[in-house]
Amino acid sequence: MTAVPDDQRLARAALTYLAEPGDRVLGPLLGSCDPAALVAGIRAGHLPEQVPALPGRRPDAISQAVRHWRARLAEVPDESDLAGFGRDGIRLICPGDAEWPSQLDVLGDTAPYALWLRGSADLRYSCLRSVSLVGARAATAYGSHISAEIAAALAERGWTVLSGGAYGVDGAAHRGALAADGATVSVLACGIDDPYPRGHHDLFDAIAAQGVLASEWPPGRTPTRLRFLIRNRVIAALARGTVVVEAAMRSGALNTARYARDLCRPLMAVPGPVTSEMSAGCHWVMREWGAVVVTGVRDVLDEVAAVGEDGHGMAGGPVVPRSELDPVTLRVLEAIPARGGAGPATIAVAAGVDVDATVGCLGSLAAGGFVQRGPRGWKLASQVPPAAGLRMLD
Amino acid sequence: MTAVPDDQRLARAALTYLAEPGDRVLGPLLGSCDPAALVAGIRAGHLPEQVPALPGRRPDAISQAVRHWRARLAEVPDESDLAGFGRDGIRLICPGDAEWPSQLDVLGDTAPYALWLRGSADLRYSCLRSVSLVGARAATAYGSHISAEIAAALAERGWTVLSGGAYGVDGAAHRGALAADGATVSVLACGIDDPYPRGHHDLFDAIAAQGVLASEWPPGRTPTRLRFLIRNRVIAALARGTVVVEAAMRSGALNTARYARDLCRPLMAVPGPVTSEMSAGCHWVMREWGAVVVTGVRDVLDEVAAVGEDGHGMAGGPVVPRSELDPVTLRVLEAIPARGGAGPATIAVAAGVDVDATVGCLGSLAAGGFVQRGPRGWKLASQVPPAAGLRMLD
Repeated sequence: MTAVPDDQRLARAALTYLAEPGDRVLGPLLGSCDPAALVAGIRAGHLPEQVPALPGRRPDAISQAVRHWRARLAEVPDESDLAGFGRDGIRLICPGDAEWPSQLDVLGDTAPYALWLRGSADLRYSCLRSVSLVGARAATAYGSHISAEIAAALAERGWTVLSGGAYGVDGAAHRGALAADGATVSVLACGIDDPYPRGHHDLFDAIAAQGVLASEWPPGRTPTRLRFLIRNRVIAALARGTVVVEAAMRSGALNTARYARDLCRPLMAVPGPVTSEMSAGCHWVMREWGAVVVTGVRDVLDEVAAVGEDGHGMAGGPVVPRSELDPVTLRVLEAIPARGGAGPATIAVAAGVDVDATVGCLGSLAAGGFVQRGPRGWKLASQVPPAAGLRMLD
Repeated sequence: MTAVPDDQRLARAALTYLAEPGDRVLGPLLGSCDPAALVAGIRAGHLPEQVPALPGRRPDAISQAVRHWRARLAEVPDESDLAGFGRDGIRLICPGDAEWPSQLDVLGDTAPYALWLRGSADLRYSCLRSVSLVGARAATAYGSHISAEIAAALAERGWTVLSGGAYGVDGAAHRGALAADGATVSVLACGIDDPYPRGHHDLFDAIAAQGVLASEWPPGRTPTRLRFLIRNRVIAALARGTVVVEAAMRSGALNTARYARDLCRPLMAVPGPVTSEMSAGCHWVMREWGAVVVTGVRDVLDEVAAVGEDGHGMAGGPVVPRSELDPVTLRVLEAIPARGGAGPATIAVAAGVDVDATVGCLGSLAAGGFVQRGPRGWKLASQVPPAAGLRMLD
């Protein structure tokens, strides 16, 4: 089912416990060392001799880092604990897994060691055609409205909405995507067993049911300001482009925007009243970083969609060829009606696949543009509605 | 007092009656023919033989144009009528006059034949350091507020505010400049004896008292939609840069914006809510024409002010050297107190210049950055206040 050997998966799981994401020693080491050998070395108190020196770092940088990592050795769960996570719907994906989003490679030495996931959708499929909407926690009614509107319009066109799960712009973006029966991905700065903020408990459950929660931090970890900032690079790297919906001058959303800019991903911002401090950050990234002014979903798709993709007056279509689907997913796909709709249980029977696996496949198929959820259940994806009306009214 | 011979001035006055501004035959002819000879030819029914053929035009284009122009011959006033305008405070300026704004030369064949003016300020001095604020007649409260705010902030820094005198954004811009004791110029699409709209009667009187009204059309002409559009090129050409404050997608302000872009003058736009149709034109010019996002006066000055000019944390200063002032203006300048302030009558006595001429000189001096009007009357211009606070709060 996967090309990643168990010892490497276990080692990467352990590394998410031992080191903070983006660690400036561990990242470069992972580029040249086997994760299992690294973890064994950490447990032994000294890394294998073949570990290279890190350019531009003091000679004792590695031994010092190892001492820090060893402080958390007791927190690393054993194999049976990890199996327990699986029973809670939590899975771990690593580089090399089919679900690993290869666009994270652009992060180089700061790429995640692994990702903890919870939810029905396939992360890689979901992110192939995705936009991140980010912005202020203290969003105004205007910002929340625009965030939900753009998210819903993206979802209607088969695009996945990425965000960070926070109050304000993030929450409105997730809700907008969910309301349009779309996939949405929440990238968290804490363990996905207890997503922050707790006031979004029901929202996170809804995201897991229809999309996916993702985190670099293992279950049990709580968020910190620094973790939010480190997390933001993953939001920027996963999505094709980033939209700042509403942001004050010191908003963390500008940190995500900077990552998007530095990664050369399309950076967009929604204008607002110049009298609103919550739009000042948007106008600033337009002026200073050349963020593109977007007033609606058409403008966003102008930046992120390739010619022939959704939102450009052409029919939408799957983002991966049917031939690349695994046999189980293909059986589920062939059990889905073209019209009307069917519930997961009906589809499971028709496909001869158990219900849990069917739900997972449906998430992947939705994110891949093959199927969509309508009022009467799941059905094959319809043509994307042609662009109507003026761009400005979108 | 002027280098323009009387016969040429009379001829150009006549041309403003005979032809519409921007006439595609008259403009090119004026580039190579003497205006007095042209008018004599129109009166005679045929132009002098040395008139060149117009490239790209039918051979009879000129004779046809002459027939059109002759239809209005009866409207051309004689010399005594023109003197009557002078008694009403209306003056005519022509290319070659000291008050002629030479930046109009960029309009080439479509430059105005002459300009009718009413008001105390010197048009050329006023426009040396000017910004045009344009936008929707049906401005929202937001647009009117921002227009007045930016206009007042420009005026406080010694910049002249240009606009078109209409309801909405235009009126708010003029009022904002007047409220800050600044110079403002209204470029009209009708005769300045009866400025349109009549609901702005008091505003136009205030502009004439503290700034200047300008028109390419002679007294008595009423505005038409086409005249507004032709007028817009003059607004764009007179100012250093143009700001679209609020505009719907079909707003005439976008026509002014297009002229500014085509003339390679800085084009700016104020963002607003994407839910407001009145900001849709602003966002459109940002996206399509690269209009710079401006959120306040600091952003505007970033585009139009040269290094060392007002608004860049340096002291403001006159835009022309003192040595270029004419002797009467210089006497008025030397009669103005550095502190407190004095009324025009007091200054007139001190300078030994009659009151009417003193008022005119004060307008020129204010526009030139030499003097300013305060609560206690006219005084020498103070240093421009240093930039304070965050750009975004401007």
